[in-house]
Amino acid sequence: MSEGNDKTKPTLIVNEGIEQPHTLNTESINQYRKKKIVRLNEPDYYIDGILAGDITILSKAITLIESSLSKHRETGQKVIDGCIGHSGNSLRIGITGVPGVGKSSFIETFGTYLTKNGNKVAVLAIDPSSQISGGSILGDKTRMEELSRNEMAFIRPSPSAGSLGGVARKTRETIILCEAAGFNIIIIETVGVGQSEIAVHSMVDFFLLLMLAGAGDELQGIKRGIMEMADMIAINKADGENIHKAKMAKVEYSNALHLYAPSESGWFPKVVTCSARTSAGLSDIWKLIKDFETLTRQNKFFELRRREQAKYWMYETLIESLKSEFFNDEKIKVLLPNFEKMVTNNNLSSFKAAAELIKVYKGE
Amino acid sequence: MSEGNDKTKPTLIVNEGIEQPHTLNTESINQYRKKKIVRLNEPDYYIDGILAGDITILSKAITLIESSLSKHRETGQKVIDGCIGHSGNSLRIGITGVPGVGKSSFIETFGTYLTKNGNKVAVLAIDPSSQISGGSILGDKTRMEELSRNEMAFIRPSPSAGSLGGVARKTRETIILCEAAGFNIIIIETVGVGQSEIAVHSMVDFFLLLMLAGAGDELQGIKRGIMEMADMIAINKADGENIHKAKMAKVEYSNALHLYAPSESGWFPKVVTCSARTSAGLSDIWKLIKDFETLTRQNKFFELRRREQAKYWMYETLIESLKSEFFNDEKIKVLLPNFEKMVTNNNLSSFKAAAELIKVYKGE
Repeated sequence: MSEGNDKTKPTLIVNEGIEQPHTLNTESINQYRKKKIVRLNEPDYYIDGILAGDITILSKAITLIESSLSKHRETGQKVIDGCIGHSGNSLRIGITGVPGVGKSSFIETFGTYLTKNGNKVAVLAIDPSSQISGGSILGDKTRMEELSRNEMAFIRPSPSAGSLGGVARKTRETIILCEAAGFNIIIIETVGVGQSEIAVHSMVDFFLLLMLAGAGDELQGIKRGIMEMADMIAINKADGENIHKAKMAKVEYSNALHLYAPSESGWFPKVVTCSARTSAGLSDIWKLIKDFETLTRQNKFFELRRREQAKYWMYETLIESLKSEFFNDEKIKVLLPNFEKMVTNNNLSSFKAAAELIKVYKGE
Repeated sequence: MSEGNDKTKPTLIVNEGIEQPHTLNTESINQYRKKKIVRLNEPDYYIDGILAGDITILSKAITLIESSLSKHRETGQKVIDGCIGHSGNSLRIGITGVPGVGKSSFIETFGTYLTKNGNKVAVLAIDPSSQISGGSILGDKTRMEELSRNEMAFIRPSPSAGSLGGVARKTRETIILCEAAGFNIIIIETVGVGQSEIAVHSMVDFFLLLMLAGAGDELQGIKRGIMEMADMIAINKADGENIHKAKMAKVEYSNALHLYAPSESGWFPKVVTCSARTSAGLSDIWKLIKDFETLTRQNKFFELRRREQAKYWMYETLIESLKSEFFNDEKIKVLLPNFEKMVTNNNLSSFKAAAELIKVYKGE
């Protein structure tokens, strides 16, 4: 049974140092504690642990990345630097679909199927709403009970603090650590209703959209842009009396996809039916994903997309940093509310306001 | 006939000063020329002219805003400052639809209808592709021949240089000048295929989507997000044998719109049929737009949206400025290609690269 894939496990880092010496000698406790703390600030502690496949340490390193303390994040960045040379050896799969489509059950069943075939599977999530709703998509581990107990799997809920940009960046960094820890399949789950799909699409090799039969895409709240990004549409819950409807939906979506321009990848998006309950269709899905990988590795699109994604993330991070430094500037924080007021009252043009604020920021 | 709404008119600003004295006395020519040039750098020259409704001067002021010379743009900003207090008294209408839907003919006929009812109509455009195709949507004036000769109308093609952000900002600024010049209806045209709709939506009060009967929205290339923004869908070319098909399409789109959540404006999007050729439906469209204005002015949504838009543009301009200063920094320009290379070759993480570049930029 896996020990490390639960960040809610009540093992506090500093307490570990207290439990182990089993002595009341205060000096020795303090020395051990100090040594332990020093060790916990050393990037090598995490890098070595991650490269050895220790998922307790992997979990702790992700916590550093997600921390709001800059000291932790600095250590986290050094851990990423040490891991990046060992990353990249995985297939990254994005999975989306509206609430109720059965994403968690699908990932539970599909993930278990993959581990049975010898794969190590990490499941991550991007859910920027988690900070509002107070819980992430994967916050409730009971929804993936079997997979969360599986030694070949690692489940990590969505980072919960910050903007979509910040949440996505943390997940992007977590991918690097998981790959360095030996996970060869990374599944990134998101909810199919907004901008977060674009963020997920910018970090995966293959994008899978889960749908239900018997509901128009309008009813399912799926935006057309998301359908256009899909490398595969899987119509879930194709079991029992639902099988016929699912087959009809398959034809319908196949026709709809024909209206789109072909993808640069050379891959024509597939539509399949499946059932997380009966496991029907799962092996077909995996076979098609492998076909996609073979095709795009051969025609070099796989590598090309990864390179483009790395570049994209460099620019995204740059722009996020520029914005963050500006809006956290003390002078700007003081002035901004007044400028906003003048602009909304039409006493100052939006452009003049921006120009003045930039001047102040630059100390001119 | 309007003199000023054609920026391709071969009247060079400095030449005007030469033509008028009708004398060969070089000294007097030079003095006149000098005086004229000084005048052309004075914001008041433009502000006075615009407030007097002189559309030749309005045209020249827009050229300053669009100029690539910072001296011109500085004068342009001062002109905007002088005009902003006189702006805002118009109804701003965004019109979109894919090529072939008949946008130009619609605006020609609808604009002419509006001027006959005593309105002064300015037609602007946002077409970021114009820099690629070499011509803007409205570049070919012959497409709006009648309206371009109409004294109550002013047609200005899309600014052609720069990113969508830059093109949109210039159009946003041009709205202020047109309003100060007394135009009470501003029509902003864009092509219904991408991000430019979002930019237009962020600067108009009412958003009109033109569609054709007999083609699915997939075939028309309209993204669902654009349909969601529409306050009205007008099915164009509802004439002759096409009338029946157009009526059927009207029912279809009405049903589709019912699936969306109601808008904050309290307005339920309308679907109508019209014909730019026969003018059928134009008075209904105008009546509905006025209904929208009445409703949203009463429930304060009109004012609220304008305030939100002004704020949005302040932040957009701030972020554009931060990006532009960073990417035009000499040190960054030298380093960026190498960093990009290291990142795409997976020798450096996207995040480390961004952090290093920010350090260099800040001189740390």
